[in-house]
Amino acid sequence: MIDQNFHKKSGSYKLSELAEIAGAEIFNKDSVDIDLIINDVAPLDEAGSGQISFFGNAKYLEAFQNSKASAFVMAKSMIDKAPKGAVLLIAKDPNLSFAKISSKFYPATKVAPLISEKSSVASSATLGKNIRIEPFAVIGENVKLGDNCYIGSGTLIGDNVEIGDNSYIASNVTITHAIIGKNALFHPGVRIGQDGFGFAQEAGVHFKVPQLGRVIIGDFVEIGANSCIDRGALKDTKIADHTKIDNLVQLGHNVELGKGCFIVSQVGIAGSTKLGDYVVVGGQVGIAGHLNVGSMTQIAAKSGVAQDLKGGQAYGGAPAQPIREWQRQMFFLQNLYKKTKKTNNGELVSGDN
Amino acid sequence: MIDQNFHKKSGSYKLSELAEIAGAEIFNKDSVDIDLIINDVAPLDEAGSGQISFFGNAKYLEAFQNSKASAFVMAKSMIDKAPKGAVLLIAKDPNLSFAKISSKFYPATKVAPLISEKSSVASSATLGKNIRIEPFAVIGENVKLGDNCYIGSGTLIGDNVEIGDNSYIASNVTITHAIIGKNALFHPGVRIGQDGFGFAQEAGVHFKVPQLGRVIIGDFVEIGANSCIDRGALKDTKIADHTKIDNLVQLGHNVELGKGCFIVSQVGIAGSTKLGDYVVVGGQVGIAGHLNVGSMTQIAAKSGVAQDLKGGQAYGGAPAQPIREWQRQMFFLQNLYKKTKKTNNGELVSGDN
Amino acid sequence: MIDQNFHKKSGSYKLSELAEIAGAEIFNKDSVDIDLIINDVAPLDEAGSGQISFFGNAKYLEAFQNSKASAFVMAKSMIDKAPKGAVLLIAKDPNLSFAKISSKFYPATKVAPLISEKSSVASSATLGKNIRIEPFAVIGENVKLGDNCYIGSGTLIGDNVEIGDNSYIASNVTITHAIIGKNALFHPGVRIGQDGFGFAQEAGVHFKVPQLGRVIIGDFVEIGANSCIDRGALKDTKIADHTKIDNLVQLGHNVELGKGCFIVSQVGIAGSTKLGDYVVVGGQVGIAGHLNVGSMTQIAAKSGVAQDLKGGQAYGGAPAQPIREWQRQMFFLQNLYKKTKKTNNGELVSGDN
Repeated sequence: MIDQNFHKKSGSYKLSELAEIAGAEIFNKDSVDIDLIINDVAPLDEAGSGQISFFGNAKYLEAFQNSKASAFVMAKSMIDKAPKGAVLLIAKDPNLSFAKISSKFYPATKVAPLISEKSSVASSATLGKNIRIEPFAVIGENVKLGDNCYIGSGTLIGDNVEIGDNSYIASNVTITHAIIGKNALFHPGVRIGQDGFGFAQEAGVHFKVPQLGRVIIGDFVEIGANSCIDRGALKDTKIADHTKIDNLVQLGHNVELGKGCFIVSQVGIAGSTKLGDYVVVGGQVGIAGHLNVGSMTQIAAKSGVAQDLKGGQAYGGAPAQPIREWQRQMFFLQNLYKKTKKTNNGELVSGDN
Repeated sequence: MIDQNFHKKSGSYKLSELAEIAGAEIFNKDSVDIDLIINDVAPLDEAGSGQISFFGNAKYLEAFQNSKASAFVMAKSMIDKAPKGAVLLIAKDPNLSFAKISSKFYPATKVAPLISEKSSVASSATLGKNIRIEPFAVIGENVKLGDNCYIGSGTLIGDNVEIGDNSYIASNVTITHAIIGKNALFHPGVRIGQDGFGFAQEAGVHFKVPQLGRVIIGDFVEIGANSCIDRGALKDTKIADHTKIDNLVQLGHNVELGKGCFIVSQVGIAGSTKLGDYVVVGGQVGIAGHLNVGSMTQIAAKSGVAQDLKGGQAYGGAPAQPIREWQRQMFFLQNLYKKTKKTNNGELVSGDN
Repeated sequence: MIDQNFHKKSGSYKLSELAEIAGAEIFNKDSVDIDLIINDVAPLDEAGSGQISFFGNAKYLEAFQNSKASAFVMAKSMIDKAPKGAVLLIAKDPNLSFAKISSKFYPATKVAPLISEKSSVASSATLGKNIRIEPFAVIGENVKLGDNCYIGSGTLIGDNVEIGDNSYIASNVTITHAIIGKNALFHPGVRIGQDGFGFAQEAGVHFKVPQLGRVIIGDFVEIGANSCIDRGALKDTKIADHTKIDNLVQLGHNVELGKGCFIVSQVGIAGSTKLGDYVVVGGQVGIAGHLNVGSMTQIAAKSGVAQDLKGGQAYGGAPAQPIREWQRQMFFLQNLYKKTKKTNNGELVSGDN
């Protein structure tokens, strides 16, 4: 059961309404009660009567077949796995359709406007309409906040920073030297705009290279908890619209991310590297500095990228190669090892001491 | 010398008392002064008269043999390495025994109860006895804090969060959407309960999947600085009793950790993966989503886990394999390379250009 | 253009003045107007008239050749790539020379002294001259801050901590159990002095080892955003002068870093490991515990260090080897795979199942 203390549910809906919201088709429509009342979403193994659930990963087939949900969102290709008589909403992308249903039951909550007396807001700051500023937040000189922004407790919005409408900046965030678009969603502990890591060597001392750029972020960008985005050295660090960044990610100075990129947790991208649009970077990947990664590139988790990557392909390994090549080499090594172990006197394979 | 500005010492003890506290035996008891007064713990190379030290790692043999400590905790198996005439407490697990002695000299300090006037505590919050809330902490609506809890400066305990007795939540922590057990120890910068990283694709835009779960944490759980634990999407993210998590760790939505797990720094565990009990995960390991890792599994540092792992075994490498297989393959590759370099015209091995 | 809202420019300078500041020579001096007025720095592709730029990486040759800058800092070796008639400052280390020019245009700004009324400063704290303490910062009992220190908003300086002159501690930092030298530069979200990750096992429970050390940091140390440095267990964790640490780095208890080390983002160094002086550690490297890494060692990004490393050499791979050996093995594996694919029936290389 979704915990109503934390998430406020909105209404119940007829099956037919949910099908429409989801852009899905009711399977075997003629023999189904399309007015069936659904009053919540639930995971397969916790769902009960009146709830709708979601089958999207073959790993959960057993949970699906044993589920007590009143209806399911799923793909056409899996219909033969469905329990007999189950009520099914057939969707092209079950994940997307179920997300729309979930959003209908649990719409984003509007925050009540409030400038906490316990915050610190510079008189030179420009605040839009319906803004909420939580206790112990600091809004610096000449800051511009758009309408409907939320600034969490303990967060610093440094001098001259601009943030567009409808942005949600969670608690304990630090933002300096940045221009941020609309509908930003930054999770707690995000650090934006601090110095990049730039030094020159002089007689055994690291001479600090002044970091004179900014961080420029487009619209609908999400940044995960405790991720760090350094400002540029001479140019700006840039993140284009609709790019989503997970937790504990590091972007060095002058990095540029295109539109709609998807950067999974603990990725590190070194200074001045540019990603095109819709690049997907798996967890814990490292990308060296001064590289170009083409649009639509996909990089497998834990890869290490040391060269430019042509777009539209998948890569893996460290150093990263086209992913099939990398997988085959790993397979080859294992097979060669096994074969040698059988045919050889063991000299090459023991390593036991 | 332990710096008494930072750590308050409690008493001095007779050797016999320490042996009892440690569950250790005094070696050669008859010829030792069991009333010897020990007044502090110290590392091997800094210890002096009246101090007890600890020899638990053969790497520090030289420091052990040159140490000026008045007594040592150590294992029986290493007795022949001890300096002649040294006073020894022989322990089954010297690490554990010395930890108990250290805890006797430096017991956990009780914090004096105080609700700082500079904090922000919702009137709807329920506070237990002997609570300390530091300046600029925020306690949200309907929060429940058990007895003897400490909430550090700048920390946010979000609406409806519950925290059990004797929990210590350090400075600059953010907790939302969570139910936390007793005796929690969360270090600074921990982020708990923010949105998981869930999106569906729609026409080049990432449609946000509502994150409707919580984080449920058992008793005696420790979480390291700047670690991030996302709340569940439909189900809850769960951490069972006595599990210990190091710094900068990432747990994705719906992850479940069993009892007594040990997750070392910079590990990332992707969404919906389940670990059994007493799993040990080395530093910088990545574990992909939707996997099952059996109880008592051990995973070597830097491994990448891409498949379910059967419990009770050790694994290593990326992709992770049984650790002996992985080590032998690495050894095999190095040997094959060396042999080829010798016998071959160099064609396969140069790579020098 | 450098955004003057975020970075305050100081003056314009004659070419000859900049050459002197940079320790550079004006190329073809007799035919150049050494009184040419330069009024800003700029990146190659954004520079215009009156601005000086920097060519230091062959990757940007095209941008250099198309640049509209009035002058360039560059190395002698690249002179033949320069556009005809370009005004050039020839430097031994163009990166260093340009950093000095940038620092002339954009000197470090002095912060105006202020103890914010919205901060919390213990009356037992000792504050030097010209200190700035931002809102919601907490200065604990008996803290000592040197002259000209800056403490950002929401930052905690815990009881008994000492920080030397001219130190800049950014927003949302947590420091406890630490003695810090002069000219520290700590970026937002840094965590210093929390418990190390030390446990002993007892009947299925992790018994906490008291963490009784401190963190001792020298002069001119920089620490990146959200990096974590645990205090020592029995000894101290130590960082020597002029060492620079990037974002999201983890240093375990008792780690010791020598002088002038350079630790790139997302590195993890496990407990009790010691690095000599001037060690360079690439991004996402992991170093196991209780190791010694010699002075002047260089470790390639993403390496995993499992053994002591002799100084003065470069290493790579996981487990780390001398870097040439590692590169050749990777090359060898790829070549052997390719050769086998051609000559073999495919048995060893398919992996396509």
